[in-house]
Amino acid sequence: MSLIVQKFGGTSVADVEKIKNVARRVAESKKRTDHIVVVVSALGKTTDELVDLAHRVSPVPPEREMDMLLSTGEQISTALLAMALAELGQDAVSMTGQQVEILTDTGHTKAKIRHVGADRVVHELRKGRVVVVAGFQGVTSDGEITTLGRGGSDTTAVAIAAALHADCCEIYTDVDGVFNADPRLVPGARKLEAVSFMEMLEMAATGARVLQSRSVEYARNYGVPLHVRSSFHPGEGTWVKSEDDVMEKAIISAVTHDFSEAKVTVLGVPDQPGVAARLFGMLADANTNVDMIIQNVSDHARTDISFTVPKDDLERVRKVTDEVVRSVGAQGCTYDDDIAKVSLIGAGMRSHPGVAAGMFKTLADNQINIEMISTSPIKISCVVGRGDGEKAVRALHKHFGLDKQ
Amino acid sequence: MSLIVQKFGGTSVADVEKIKNVARRVAESKKRTDHIVVVVSALGKTTDELVDLAHRVSPVPPEREMDMLLSTGEQISTALLAMALAELGQDAVSMTGQQVEILTDTGHTKAKIRHVGADRVVHELRKGRVVVVAGFQGVTSDGEITTLGRGGSDTTAVAIAAALHADCCEIYTDVDGVFNADPRLVPGARKLEAVSFMEMLEMAATGARVLQSRSVEYARNYGVPLHVRSSFHPGEGTWVKSEDDVMEKAIISAVTHDFSEAKVTVLGVPDQPGVAARLFGMLADANTNVDMIIQNVSDHARTDISFTVPKDDLERVRKVTDEVVRSVGAQGCTYDDDIAKVSLIGAGMRSHPGVAAGMFKTLADNQINIEMISTSPIKISCVVGRGDGEKAVRALHKHFGLDKQ
Repeated sequence: MSLIVQKFGGTSVADVEKIKNVARRVAESKKRTDHIVVVVSALGKTTDELVDLAHRVSPVPPEREMDMLLSTGEQISTALLAMALAELGQDAVSMTGQQVEILTDTGHTKAKIRHVGADRVVHELRKGRVVVVAGFQGVTSDGEITTLGRGGSDTTAVAIAAALHADCCEIYTDVDGVFNADPRLVPGARKLEAVSFMEMLEMAATGARVLQSRSVEYARNYGVPLHVRSSFHPGEGTWVKSEDDVMEKAIISAVTHDFSEAKVTVLGVPDQPGVAARLFGMLADANTNVDMIIQNVSDHARTDISFTVPKDDLERVRKVTDEVVRSVGAQGCTYDDDIAKVSLIGAGMRSHPGVAAGMFKTLADNQINIEMISTSPIKISCVVGRGDGEKAVRALHKHFGLDKQ
Repeated sequence: MSLIVQKFGGTSVADVEKIKNVARRVAESKKRTDHIVVVVSALGKTTDELVDLAHRVSPVPPEREMDMLLSTGEQISTALLAMALAELGQDAVSMTGQQVEILTDTGHTKAKIRHVGADRVVHELRKGRVVVVAGFQGVTSDGEITTLGRGGSDTTAVAIAAALHADCCEIYTDVDGVFNADPRLVPGARKLEAVSFMEMLEMAATGARVLQSRSVEYARNYGVPLHVRSSFHPGEGTWVKSEDDVMEKAIISAVTHDFSEAKVTVLGVPDQPGVAARLFGMLADANTNVDMIIQNVSDHARTDISFTVPKDDLERVRKVTDEVVRSVGAQGCTYDDDIAKVSLIGAGMRSHPGVAAGMFKTLADNQINIEMISTSPIKISCVVGRGDGEKAVRALHKHFGLDKQ
C-alpha cells in the first residue's frame, strides 16, 4: 500500500483558483497512490491579516488567544480544499489538529509536537478518502488549541508522515527544489537531485529558506524522506533523505548566504570561568537567537568574544551586552550590522581536508577580507563585509564547480 | 452568586472599535456581577464572506465542510474579544463549542443541541475569568464540528444559561428591545417592558425579527429569563419570561406583520381522507416551510386547500403542487405573492372573546379585504393584499390602544 503526505504552503492556496489547482493535483496523485494525506497552510496572507487584527485589539495579545485566532486560518483552507476535491468527485474530509490528535506541549505560539494519534486519519483513508489536515496547529492534553510557530505546517506534514509510516512527504513550494546556491544571486545555480538531512540542516541554518530546520530535524529523526518540489509543474524536485540513501556524495553540495545577521563583539572580557555562560545565559533570557560564537585563545588576562544575531534583535541585544560589560568589567562592545555570512556545505568535506583552504584562497583572490570563521564537520562559514557578499557567493560557486553538471 | 450570560450579535462586533466597546461593556458588568459568560457571533459580514468563498469553490459544498469553514468566524471573534478584555485588565478566556462541550446531533448546518457539559466553563469562572464562548457551533460525540443554523448564537447563549442556571440571558441587539409593532412602519410603536415566552414565540412566528423562535422555545423549556436590550446604551430593554412572571397582562401585546410570504390555493381537491397528508408530506419532502394552512368545510365532494409559504420557496412549491394536482385529480392551483400577513398577539385575548371581531371590524372600516384567517389561543392572523399591509398594521395598532402608555 502506498501512502504519501503532500504539503501545500500558503502561496499554493492563495485564492480560489489556486485551491482548485491544488485539488486537481491531489486528485491526480490519488489515481497513482493508494492513500493521500494533504497538509495545508492558511490562505496566502490570512495569517498576517489575523495578526494585524489582533494587534489592533491589543499590542501584546495573550498567546493562548493568538493561537485560538491564528488556527482558524488553516481550518478555512482545509475546508475549502476538501470542498474543491469533492467538486472533482474525489471524496475528501478536512480535519483540525485536534481531530487528528496532534498532541503538543502547552507552549502557545511555538508548541512542540509530543504525539500524533492518527487512528482517525487511518480510518478515513481506508474509506478511500483524501484526508486534508490543517497544518501549523495542535492541541494540548487539556484540549487547548496551540500553534507550532514558523514553518509549523512543514512540521505537521512530517509528523503525520512519520506517524503513518508514509513512503515520503512531499513539500510543494514556489521553487523547483533545493538549489546549490540562491538562483537570484547566482545565474549558474543548479537544482540538487538529492541532499542528506544533515546537509539540509546546515543549509537551513546558514540561510537557505526553502525548508525550516525543525521539520528537517523531525524528518531525520523519524527517517521520513522529503521531496521538495514545484506546485506549478509535475517535474521531480529535490529529495532530502538519510546520507546512506544519497548515492552521489559530492564534496560540496551548496553555497549558502545569510545577509540578515549582525556581528557583536564584547571586548576585553576578563578571562575567567563563567563569564561566557553569563553573557549567553542573559541573551537566552532575552529570547535572542545567537548564531556563530567565536572566542579566540586569550594571550593575556582578557579576551574578545564575538557572535552573530539577527539584525532585528540588535536593539534588544544592545541592552543585554551593555549590562554584561558593566557587570563583568569588560572593556566595551562593538556592533556591526553590515556583514554577510557565506557558507560551504557538503557531507564529502569530512574526508577532503583541503576545502577550508580552498575557500579562504578563493575569497583572498577576490580581495575579500574574512572577519569570522566557524566550522562544523560538513560546513564552513565565513563572515565578510556585506558589500562583498554576492561576490563571495558567486566566486565560491564557481571555484568548487557547482555550476557544472 | 450572580451569573449572567450576555450574547452579542455580529453587528455588535463588526470591527475592532466595536469589539473594544463590547469589552468595555462586559468589563463594566463584571464589576456588578460575580460571573459573566459572553457568547459572540462572527464579526459583521464574516459568515456571508465565507459562504461566498465556499460557493466559488463548489456550487453545493458538502455540509460537513461548510460547518468546518463557518465555525471559524465565531472562533475569531471570541479570541479577539478575550484579547480586548485582557487589554482592559479583565482576565478572560475564549472557548470553542467543542471546548465548552456543546454536544449536538449530526445534522450539519442545522444541528440541534443535545447536551451542554459546562464543567470547564465553571472551572474558568471560578478563577474570576470572563468566559467568551463561540456561538452558533457545537460538536458531535465523534468530535465533528457542527453549526446550529440561523439564530444559532442566541440558542447557544440560552443553552449555556440553562446549563449554568444563570440568573438571566441578555441578548444585545441594535434595537432597544421588543416593540409592540415595527417602529419603521408605525411611528407610535412602543417598547414592551415584558412579554411572555408564548407571546414572543407567536411574535417571532408572525414576523417579529428580533429573536428566533428556536432560542425562545429553548428559554421557555428551561425557564431562562431573556433580556433583549441595546448594545449601544445601558437602558433597560424588554424582558421575555414565563407568563406567571409577567405582571401586567395586556389583552393585546403587539401587532406583527410578515410581507415575505405567498399564498397557494389548490382548487377542487377530492374530499377524501389522506389527500392533505399527501400534499403536505410532499411539501415537507421538498424542505418547504409551510405556515398558515386553511381548509374550509366542503359542501360537495371537493374542497379548496390554501396555505402560505415563503416567497423564496414558491418555485419549488409550484413543482410539488403541479404534481399533486395531477396525482390526486384536483382541479387546479393558484398562486399569489402579493399578500401581507398581519397578526395580533396577546396572552390576555384568551379571556376576551371580542378581540377577533374588533380586528375584523377595524380592517373592514379601512376597506381592507381579508383573504385568510388563522387563530391560536393568543394570536389572530389575517392575510390581506400586500398594498393594504402597512395600513392594516397602523389601524390595528391604534384601534387596540397600543400607541398609549
